Amino acid sequence: MNISETAKWLSERDNYLIVTHRRPDGDTIGSAAGLARGLRGLGKTAYILYNPEITARYLPYAERYWAPDDFLPDNVVAVDTASHELFPVNWENSARRIALCIDHHPSNTGYAELSCIDGARASCGEIIFEILSRWPGAVDAEVAAALYVAVSTDTGCFAFGNTTADTLQVASELARAGAPIAHINRTMFRAKTRARAVLEGLIFSELEFHFDGRAAIAVVTKDMLARVGATENELDDIASLPGSIEGVWAGITIRELSGPDDCKVSVRSGENIDSNALCARFGGGGHPMAAGFTARARVFDIKAGLLAALDEILGGKTRP
Amino acid sequence: MNISETAKWLSERDNYLIVTHRRPDGDTIGSAAGLARGLRGLGKTAYILYNPEITARYLPYAERYWAPDDFLPDNVVAVDTASHELFPVNWENSARRIALCIDHHPSNTGYAELSCIDGARASCGEIIFEILSRWPGAVDAEVAAALYVAVSTDTGCFAFGNTTADTLQVASELARAGAPIAHINRTMFRAKTRARAVLEGLIFSELEFHFDGRAAIAVVTKDMLARVGATENELDDIASLPGSIEGVWAGITIRELSGPDDCKVSVRSGENIDSNALCARFGGGGHPMAAGFTARARVFDIKAGLLAALDEILGGKTRP
Repeated sequence: MNISETAKWLSERDNYLIVTHRRPDGDTIGSAAGLARGLRGLGKTAYILYNPEITARYLPYAERYWAPDDFLPDNVVAVDTASHELFPVNWENSARRIALCIDHHPSNTGYAELSCIDGARASCGEIIFEILSRWPGAVDAEVAAALYVAVSTDTGCFAFGNTTADTLQVASELARAGAPIAHINRTMFRAKTRARAVLEGLIFSELEFHFDGRAAIAVVTKDMLARVGATENELDDIASLPGSIEGVWAGITIRELSGPDDCKVSVRSGENIDSNALCARFGGGGHPMAAGFTARARVFDIKAGLLAALDEILGGKTRP
Repeated sequence: MNISETAKWLSERDNYLIVTHRRPDGDTIGSAAGLARGLRGLGKTAYILYNPEITARYLPYAERYWAPDDFLPDNVVAVDTASHELFPVNWENSARRIALCIDHHPSNTGYAELSCIDGARASCGEIIFEILSRWPGAVDAEVAAALYVAVSTDTGCFAFGNTTADTLQVASELARAGAPIAHINRTMFRAKTRARAVLEGLIFSELEFHFDGRAAIAVVTKDMLARVGATENELDDIASLPGSIEGVWAGITIRELSGPDDCKVSVRSGENIDSNALCARFGGGGHPMAAGFTARARVFDIKAGLLAALDEILGGKTRP
């Protein structure tokens, strides 16, 4: 469905449960909160399914919309969620159908009955903004704040390669609608804890370079996090660090999750490498410049697999 | 003069020399380059006075407009320059008058014959954009690139507290006009050298906290820079680091320039402290959230003076 059709569909129904994705980021939470608030402004009942993995920085935007345990939705809407497997663990035993998916991932599997997908948008929040803008007055200051979180975090505060003129236009309109952008920017981008600052120093000093510096690999072990006293809250957007060094085409972050053979791999790239295609080789996916996968393997073996894949992609091009 | 009057004044004259400020940043260089290119689009002759302190990241935007030695201007225009003392050293012996100043510093001393000043704008580049927008077609891709450098660098890629809906609106229009925002963002904000990454780690680990963490002071000595192999190119926006730690109201950076008794002090603050007022006590100035001063004194004495001033400003408020 396009924007108008989606707005019409939403305005004709009621009793919405909005579902976010696992390891929720600012885009899924901000999109869900903006949509919930916007629908309530239309007089609808709308809740967000509790996401057990939400971090402290995003909690204030979502918690007022958590669905009560006994809420029986008529319509389930997923936001920013590319595939059914990315639903939170507390969804897993649900037999409910997904009526609508609103998303910006080109890799979306089409798991919902209806979909409103625009792969050219930098964030799902932009699509939610376009939908809510069809209803006069729907984008109030609270909607604007939630959607600004979505748009700004998915673009690294408008610095990532996915940012477009449309992204900046939406951000400007959200600021005009009352989003407290100075506060949100400070919280999301400028303020870092001392543990985060030390962790970044550690990551930069232990970074591995391959292929004449075209690929940089950061490894974040549970031991490193314990040493600097970092929690989940210190790890937001950590995957962007290796790609931030000059000359790096592929910035790869391998992070231990529950233990040494349970890792999450994130790839960030410029225009020379397709992150989505690289991660698809390992069963993952995402966007051309930002993708990832999880692996039941040790760091050493994951690294070997990635280097072999990169060797094929980069060929002999970057070596003397 | 307002925007329309300034546009009219510029369109009625010719032979412009544009002057930038000492230790030039992206706003003064981008504003000058955008204005030079815009004026040339109108069929005017326009050059930028060579700035001997320009760094590598800004050079590509300005060098094509450097004035030849024998250029005799009819009109000198200063951009983003708050006072006459901030003119580059190669201006010092000039007897030329400054016909026009275009600036966004509320502390502008009014040294020019005519001024177009808007202290509510986050960057001088936004004012230049408004002026050039009065001439159809003046904002081509090259103007847009230069002005995007100005607007984005003075707002820390739209993350600083000075960013407004107008800033984001201008940025969106510049992107639509052809500014290569992905390339500029990568160069200016995302790409850092390894020396810069190590230097940031060093600064964070040696940061001093005062007044229950409300004030953070970073000292950057010539010795530190030599140790990590950092050059002037690694120091852009280094002043924003201490203010980026959670809970810090005033982030202060004291940097040795030519030697241990020649220092530059930069202050970045949130809404609780007026950086401009603090720096004015030491003969400097700037904006409420970003100001600075230079001092012929040693780090130890500068720190003592700042702590005494902060003690007055913060009073007993932040201490138990």
